[in-house]
Amino acid sequence: MGAFGRVLVMMAIVTLTRVSADPDMLQDLCVADLTSAVKVNGFTCKSNVTEEDFFFAGLAKPGATNNSMGLVVTAANVQKIPGLNTLGVSLSRVDYAPGGLNPPHTHPRATEIVFVLKGKLDVGFITTANVLISKSIKKGEIFVFPKGLVHFQKNNGKVAAAAIAAFNSQLPGTQSIAAALFAASPPVPDNVLSKAFQVGTKEVDKIKSKFAPKN
Amino acid sequence: MGAFGRVLVMMAIVTLTRVSADPDMLQDLCVADLTSAVKVNGFTCKSNVTEEDFFFAGLAKPGATNNSMGLVVTAANVQKIPGLNTLGVSLSRVDYAPGGLNPPHTHPRATEIVFVLKGKLDVGFITTANVLISKSIKKGEIFVFPKGLVHFQKNNGKVAAAAIAAFNSQLPGTQSIAAALFAASPPVPDNVLSKAFQVGTKEVDKIKSKFAPKN
Amino acid sequence: MGAFGRVLVMMAIVTLTRVSADPDMLQDLCVADLTSAVKVNGFTCKSNVTEEDFFFAGLAKPGATNNSMGLVVTAANVQKIPGLNTLGVSLSRVDYAPGGLNPPHTHPRATEIVFVLKGKLDVGFITTANVLISKSIKKGEIFVFPKGLVHFQKNNGKVAAAAIAAFNSQLPGTQSIAAALFAASPPVPDNVLSKAFQVGTKEVDKIKSKFAPKN
Amino acid sequence: MGAFGRVLVMMAIVTLTRVSADPDMLQDLCVADLTSAVKVNGFTCKSNVTEEDFFFAGLAKPGATNNSMGLVVTAANVQKIPGLNTLGVSLSRVDYAPGGLNPPHTHPRATEIVFVLKGKLDVGFITTANVLISKSIKKGEIFVFPKGLVHFQKNNGKVAAAAIAAFNSQLPGTQSIAAALFAASPPVPDNVLSKAFQVGTKEVDKIKSKFAPKN
Amino acid sequence: MGAFGRVLVMMAIVTLTRVSADPDMLQDLCVADLTSAVKVNGFTCKSNVTEEDFFFAGLAKPGATNNSMGLVVTAANVQKIPGLNTLGVSLSRVDYAPGGLNPPHTHPRATEIVFVLKGKLDVGFITTANVLISKSIKKGEIFVFPKGLVHFQKNNGKVAAAAIAAFNSQLPGTQSIAAALFAASPPVPDNVLSKAFQVGTKEVDKIKSKFAPKN
Amino acid sequence: MGAFGRVLVMMAIVTLTRVSADPDMLQDLCVADLTSAVKVNGFTCKSNVTEEDFFFAGLAKPGATNNSMGLVVTAANVQKIPGLNTLGVSLSRVDYAPGGLNPPHTHPRATEIVFVLKGKLDVGFITTANVLISKSIKKGEIFVFPKGLVHFQKNNGKVAAAAIAAFNSQLPGTQSIAAALFAASPPVPDNVLSKAFQVGTKEVDKIKSKFAPKN
Repeated sequence: MGAFGRVLVMMAIVTLTRVSADPDMLQDLCVADLTSAVKVNGFTCKSNVTEEDFFFAGLAKPGATNNSMGLVVTAANVQKIPGLNTLGVSLSRVDYAPGGLNPPHTHPRATEIVFVLKGKLDVGFITTANVLISKSIKKGEIFVFPKGLVHFQKNNGKVAAAAIAAFNSQLPGTQSIAAALFAASPPVPDNVLSKAFQVGTKEVDKIKSKFAPKN
Repeated sequence: MGAFGRVLVMMAIVTLTRVSADPDMLQDLCVADLTSAVKVNGFTCKSNVTEEDFFFAGLAKPGATNNSMGLVVTAANVQKIPGLNTLGVSLSRVDYAPGGLNPPHTHPRATEIVFVLKGKLDVGFITTANVLISKSIKKGEIFVFPKGLVHFQKNNGKVAAAAIAAFNSQLPGTQSIAAALFAASPPVPDNVLSKAFQVGTKEVDKIKSKFAPKN
Repeated sequence: MGAFGRVLVMMAIVTLTRVSADPDMLQDLCVADLTSAVKVNGFTCKSNVTEEDFFFAGLAKPGATNNSMGLVVTAANVQKIPGLNTLGVSLSRVDYAPGGLNPPHTHPRATEIVFVLKGKLDVGFITTANVLISKSIKKGEIFVFPKGLVHFQKNNGKVAAAAIAAFNSQLPGTQSIAAALFAASPPVPDNVLSKAFQVGTKEVDKIKSKFAPKN
Repeated sequence: MGAFGRVLVMMAIVTLTRVSADPDMLQDLCVADLTSAVKVNGFTCKSNVTEEDFFFAGLAKPGATNNSMGLVVTAANVQKIPGLNTLGVSLSRVDYAPGGLNPPHTHPRATEIVFVLKGKLDVGFITTANVLISKSIKKGEIFVFPKGLVHFQKNNGKVAAAAIAAFNSQLPGTQSIAAALFAASPPVPDNVLSKAFQVGTKEVDKIKSKFAPKN
Repeated sequence: MGAFGRVLVMMAIVTLTRVSADPDMLQDLCVADLTSAVKVNGFTCKSNVTEEDFFFAGLAKPGATNNSMGLVVTAANVQKIPGLNTLGVSLSRVDYAPGGLNPPHTHPRATEIVFVLKGKLDVGFITTANVLISKSIKKGEIFVFPKGLVHFQKNNGKVAAAAIAAFNSQLPGTQSIAAALFAASPPVPDNVLSKAFQVGTKEVDKIKSKFAPKN
Repeated sequence: MGAFGRVLVMMAIVTLTRVSADPDMLQDLCVADLTSAVKVNGFTCKSNVTEEDFFFAGLAKPGATNNSMGLVVTAANVQKIPGLNTLGVSLSRVDYAPGGLNPPHTHPRATEIVFVLKGKLDVGFITTANVLISKSIKKGEIFVFPKGLVHFQKNNGKVAAAAIAAFNSQLPGTQSIAAALFAASPPVPDNVLSKAFQVGTKEVDKIKSKFAPKN
């Protein structure tokens, strides 16, 4: 056995004595232990790491869009791909029925880039100075939604559309504006919404009723 | 002159040969040059630094709250205190008329803590799972609004209220939800707002008209 | 039940299957479990989150200032407000008797802004080039102490003063210079202090005796 | 004109007095001025911002893969999308001829996720403990390459393949291992490469000749 | 007992009630508990902290360089100095036999500075544009290898050389290029290496055999 | 010319059209332009980059220690090694006469590790809970001083000592406590120092006189 080979083996032994199961990974990776009882910012790291921890097949097919928004978002974040833990990036697939809307929302922890897989989308974001930056984009094109700003996408075409969205966070979070304000539990007080949107409380209650679960 | 004194002087000379006006500051500080033609993330640093760059008197007095929200926010951020540049913190004073509302909004770049100076406030924030976390707080009490999440404060009391808000950003930014969606320029399309809030476009236009500038 | 409502419910179910107690919070928050046996950088996250985790009433009243410095600092950091964990901001209230001094100290992990609640303060910080930046400030005024630099506040007025201090750290830490050097345990060697301050060891011991606990 | 409208206008005026061309953007964005004479970490910010700064159409079509690697990478980073400056994310499109290889390389500044647009890819990365983590992935599937680690993709199929790669950096950088070592200018010394790869200098020179530009 | 002493004691009590063993350290330090069953990004913090946690004697003597590379690297990172946890810095000692080579490698998580303790070294790094930046340095001289870029050092002198390397990471990681590609387990496919280096698979296998462990 | 060579050349052309002088470097490096009129956090980047920008010979020889502290610190930071800009690491050499003291000081922006080049040192740091962590270390040994905490080194031996200090900042800054408090300009008020150190103003003035420049 050559001297260099010996150095490599020696390094492996040193590492192996430190942790039991899959020590090599700890230096470069911290694959999420999604079932750990200990909760930290992000996730604790598990020991048994395989290639499956870095893989996800769930974005391959369109999701069902037969709902009131004509929209479904399929996330590929750290909750689905444990290998993303501490690595600061994730994806989503968004499918839009004709007329479908990804309603105004924010991602508190990430900038987003969308890449259109098929169809056309009217997209936009709004700055803190209330300036709308918007554009119509189509298959193969890209648009950026800066971190934390309200943005939306609408499929005004007659055929279904789809997009891949990339985020610089392992779990970007989504705050959907209308649902946050009108479907929160416990509810946001009527007098807050009425004054904020300059409408009567009757109109507030009407909007709230649209977002309420039905039997 | 003692040897230690000599060392100090020598250090001063070395530094002085590098930049002309106020070299000492460059090591610990980067006071914003608010008038520089060169724009960077944050601000470039100016050379003439004084104690006034770290001082602000503009929060001492209540602002005028005779507007539709019954609210005024006076910011003490890097635009007012150039010494805050690169230091990651700022304040605001918020004054509320009786009934006044700081309408639902986000700060894309900061967590906020409010400290009530006088009066009472009903405050709350909404998580990305649409859970409202709210409380009534009064003079001397504190509440936290986590980074990027929609939050609001309302003075439901009969007397004016005031608060100091602290942010962990030199320029936290404020995205006021209703104004962003209904007063953006160019306007957010009616069909986006109509579908998002589940109301007719007539109601959308009515809300937009409330936010429009009047002659 | 409308399609959009169904989407919301479906999302809630997906989340609920992941963690048991308070799943919604994990995405936006990591409220400190102050009693956890597992210690990490900051704190691990607890599961039962309420509005009380974001609230603190302990700054409402002045603390007792009848001590040798004429000073009391009341902290409102992550140890008091567990909701601040991972959010990077905190407050303190400082009360000063007439003549009271917040002696020269550093915060290793934060910049500080003070807002004067009442009275007057002579405040200052010292740069690494040994330049003093100082000013007299009064009720409603603000001053900034950049991260890591030695600073102080003195109430040279005839009435009590008080201030709110904001920090861009959940636990900024305070290193009080004189106490660190002359009251450390075990003690800093006399010959270090004697040479550093250019005084005799007798004078060093005299200062140390002032900081020693008395029976 | 209502009171709230007046507040909005007042805010606009305050902002407009600060910078001339597109002041609103400075608070949320720092769109790269790619032609500025001043070079900083990232880019300085330009003033005239439009929706085109957040848009890119260059990934819509496959690039030409008739080269020795059977591969072409089309980047959509800050150099193509100036709006990405300071936002920490970017994309690339990679096209692979049958047999095409994206040879072992690192991105010094980013983790990468690939989403397969068409075809199949054999992909893998190597940890610092020399463990290969690899998998065959096909259309619609995802794989992660952790930050800074050597990784590769090979199209072992009989038809062309394509993928979208997302990075958590506005300019991730690519260090292609074989080219860095055997095509550097000036060249890496033969005795370094010979000893590192345990081959003769004749073999080193032979490999270098393969990477040399030809007339 | 003086009033100031009382304040100090009161603070100590408050702190002591929070955690049992070594509470003071938690505010400034998070000394790695290298044996904890809970794995996080970095390490969890232990309670019993002593000066030994910040100390290491293992770089005092040269390591054995009688191996195929004529090289030994002795690390002084968080695995050896638990006090380095969360502090973002570490050292290594590198010893080179005459002719010894630290073969081309990257540190995915750190920039490196080398300080030559004795002898001479030919050092270099390669940019992502395949430009070699290299120099001969000798005892007492310094050279910088920017974060993530391939670099190497070779002792072309006739006597042993040694260097201290400083990193801005508690665990910078080392990816040795030739070993990663030709000694990975499982092996990197021959057709990847053959195409990447433009050599036949026979030559690939020959290189692999040099890196294989021998009996 | 082979296809792969063509790809490389094409890439070079694309890059060259963007900036004039040394475009390749901009992607991995931002070498400090120490003479630029534009000041930013850190430094702007220059265009002409050579190996000299990453090199420094100034630590090779001991500095003169015939001063009142018996100490000289020679810095190898971004002001001496422009290539360190944005890379987050630097070194210093410290030489100690017999009895020499590096008096209590902080580095506001860095953790420090010292490696003893020769002689012996008594070293220590003080936590924010006023606990002294100290040790005697000798040639080849290492000790860590956590970020922002007061620390010192004293050569209590009979021969000269020397150390290399590594920092995780391109410009860590040094705040020497006694000089900051007793030699600041303008001076820190006597009543602040008198109360802080619990000594008379006469003793304060005496210490100040020791730090004053002499003719």
